[in-house]
Amino acid sequence: MKHFTSVLDIPSLGNWLEDAKALKKDPRGHLHLGKGKTLGLLFFNNSLRTRLSTQKAAINLGMDVMVMNFGKEGWALEFADGTVMNGQSAEHIREAARVVSQYCDILGIRAFAQLENRELDESEPVLNGFLQHATIPVVNLESALGHPLQALADAITLEENRIKKQPRVVLTWAPHPRALPHAVANSFVQIMQRMPVDLSIVQPSGYELDKSIIGNTPVYFDQAKALQGADFVYAKNWSSFEQYGQVVSEDQDWMVTKEKLGDAKFMHCLPVRRNVVVEDAVLESEQSLVIQQANNRTYSAQLVLKKLLEGLTL
Amino acid sequence: MKHFTSVLDIPSLGNWLEDAKALKKDPRGHLHLGKGKTLGLLFFNNSLRTRLSTQKAAINLGMDVMVMNFGKEGWALEFADGTVMNGQSAEHIREAARVVSQYCDILGIRAFAQLENRELDESEPVLNGFLQHATIPVVNLESALGHPLQALADAITLEENRIKKQPRVVLTWAPHPRALPHAVANSFVQIMQRMPVDLSIVQPSGYELDKSIIGNTPVYFDQAKALQGADFVYAKNWSSFEQYGQVVSEDQDWMVTKEKLGDAKFMHCLPVRRNVVVEDAVLESEQSLVIQQANNRTYSAQLVLKKLLEGLTL
Amino acid sequence: MKHFTSVLDIPSLGNWLEDAKALKKDPRGHLHLGKGKTLGLLFFNNSLRTRLSTQKAAINLGMDVMVMNFGKEGWALEFADGTVMNGQSAEHIREAARVVSQYCDILGIRAFAQLENRELDESEPVLNGFLQHATIPVVNLESALGHPLQALADAITLEENRIKKQPRVVLTWAPHPRALPHAVANSFVQIMQRMPVDLSIVQPSGYELDKSIIGNTPVYFDQAKALQGADFVYAKNWSSFEQYGQVVSEDQDWMVTKEKLGDAKFMHCLPVRRNVVVEDAVLESEQSLVIQQANNRTYSAQLVLKKLLEGLTL
Repeated sequence: MKHFTSVLDIPSLGNWLEDAKALKKDPRGHLHLGKGKTLGLLFFNNSLRTRLSTQKAAINLGMDVMVMNFGKEGWALEFADGTVMNGQSAEHIREAARVVSQYCDILGIRAFAQLENRELDESEPVLNGFLQHATIPVVNLESALGHPLQALADAITLEENRIKKQPRVVLTWAPHPRALPHAVANSFVQIMQRMPVDLSIVQPSGYELDKSIIGNTPVYFDQAKALQGADFVYAKNWSSFEQYGQVVSEDQDWMVTKEKLGDAKFMHCLPVRRNVVVEDAVLESEQSLVIQQANNRTYSAQLVLKKLLEGLTL
Repeated sequence: MKHFTSVLDIPSLGNWLEDAKALKKDPRGHLHLGKGKTLGLLFFNNSLRTRLSTQKAAINLGMDVMVMNFGKEGWALEFADGTVMNGQSAEHIREAARVVSQYCDILGIRAFAQLENRELDESEPVLNGFLQHATIPVVNLESALGHPLQALADAITLEENRIKKQPRVVLTWAPHPRALPHAVANSFVQIMQRMPVDLSIVQPSGYELDKSIIGNTPVYFDQAKALQGADFVYAKNWSSFEQYGQVVSEDQDWMVTKEKLGDAKFMHCLPVRRNVVVEDAVLESEQSLVIQQANNRTYSAQLVLKKLLEGLTL
Repeated sequence: MKHFTSVLDIPSLGNWLEDAKALKKDPRGHLHLGKGKTLGLLFFNNSLRTRLSTQKAAINLGMDVMVMNFGKEGWALEFADGTVMNGQSAEHIREAARVVSQYCDILGIRAFAQLENRELDESEPVLNGFLQHATIPVVNLESALGHPLQALADAITLEENRIKKQPRVVLTWAPHPRALPHAVANSFVQIMQRMPVDLSIVQPSGYELDKSIIGNTPVYFDQAKALQGADFVYAKNWSSFEQYGQVVSEDQDWMVTKEKLGDAKFMHCLPVRRNVVVEDAVLESEQSLVIQQANNRTYSAQLVLKKLLEGLTL
């Protein structure tokens, strides 16, 4: 694994989940591995969990960390090749990525979808710009299309809470006042497709995810029916993929309630809008795994950094 | 002491002042104590001294530090319970505090009074939100009602400069072009009330502090008279408490001058507006303790962190 | 050397270039030197290379680093003496510099020219304010008049790539859509004047640099002619010094092309506007040294910090 940009970069998920379990038992058992190595975290968007958990993961591995809010503290970047740069952008990704690679050993990049132009978002200009021009391993801290560190934390959490051999996992769309990207939903679907679970997706018509992500996963439109018998319910809002970036329904009936949840465990990546996405009663119940998911962000990031550091020393 | 949110959390001020003296003599003598421990500093307002001195204190104790400008780098927080979160706030304190507690061992929070609604400020929504929901010790880096790290630094400084057994300490209101919170004045009064000093407060009519803070401390309205025979003059502006958050007087005659000061030592928490709060001649004289007070911010923070770390390892 | 604010602070450039070579071979060979020492980096302007390379340099020396975006995270500073501070500025440099000196062992300051008032820029209010009032060594991370860490990195890079004993080095003005400061050009000229090179400057009429910087260095106005036979071409835009801070020409004919470059090596401090300052073909060729220059920023900063740390321990 040269970079970690997608759930698909995980060579063997089963082995990784075993490794994560071991890491969590002894988080500071590999302090030597990161000694003298520097992690650069470049944020093009806001962040709470990713910012702090990835720093913590690096600290646990003995790494030094440099955090930068790229847009606010650095220079506006140009990503297109051949441009005459006489506008807003002061620096080209070709220089920025190569330069930063010289100050760090591993690079983390967060750059959300802008939800204005599907083709542009699908080209992942920021993440792919760094992937193409950086000379060190790159970690996706949430890009336009995916949030694999979150998905890995979700998989670890599910593994810690599974009772059945093949639990029923339902990803349900939930309402939200603003248009949100597809990254979390995409990566959750992708990682669950690689686990021994019975996965399905339910959302209002018009909110189907990208077909290439859905693959053979069953898609339903009746939330009540889809949630019946679920062992894990993962709620998440996303904007329309077909009418790209649009909010085509804010139907409050899709909010997850304790009644709908039944005996299932509740999952969400956070931040979550209470009483819009899910009612208070769910989050305050023992069925909620959201705090545990957030905790596993540290170990998810630490596992990825550990694998990349091991690759560096080969 | 589980948290450090107020001067009143100090169990024995006399012992603490002795401990501070010892700590200052050997600031890096407890590097083992913070090893493997992480301090999270969450700023909801700007900061210079608190930001740097608290980081330095943690470094002196061998801790790792993660600093975050919460409002600018994270998500807008909701503090009210039961809200339908379909407005500006993207995350509830119930999640944020519990999540961050998993990445840190001690948490520092700075959130000023907004001076618009007294009841809201008195409820200390941010600090109390973290206190209620965090699962780790919380340190007040200045809240609506108090700035105990500053007050402790003030007490250390006064202790270092006292000659008399029971010096006369006067807290005087001073003019300022903007409306300022009561936090520094509150905590200074509270800590002086616990020391062997003869404390009084002087301010123009309309600027009386909260009665529950004043207690039995004498309050005067004639600055010239109040400053006579003072050993320490602490100047600070605050807005009206009665006409909450209003500037009811900008009377420049209240500026502290060398003449008014007499032989007293001058104290201020900084930042200070020169020639508005106090004239240049005072700050440039040997009677000014303001730089020493700022230096003691490191040891004040370090003492608090040390006590909390010792509590963690019990 | 008490501070590092200008190329002229380097006592013996030849020795420093030898030291830089040794440092680069073993960057982490002096971890003991910075142990227990703290570097404070105060940014009044944006930064990518300086921010990250100087942090990395400090890490390589075992130092702790505290980074602060002064304007955005702290208080607006007053630099003029005797002011009645009833306006925007909340803190005077006299306090800020003395206070910060107590939390750090070395201080780095970045504060660009504002290009509105030549006399004000030439007085270097921010850098000189810190120099005057700080009680610890100060490093210039780019001020109104100079960028000596960049110039030192440039000199290291030139040294690594020189073939001839006395190469021909040409600093050429290049077009840019915005008005830029003179700092990089000033410091490059100053450091080249101290090296065994044949230096000349070429720019359109109206873009002559400060005469006190130019000294005896030949100045030309015909770019094609000036670049003939050059071994190193350093391109940089700057605004007019005579018509202070104005863009008096945007003549695109001054863009550096592969054809103009001939066999010379190409240098630029970055960030660079592609196809405005220099064409893509140059930056993508093996003649470009810009990435190597950026890499040498780490060693340039590390050498300066090392010298200052050695001074501290004397």
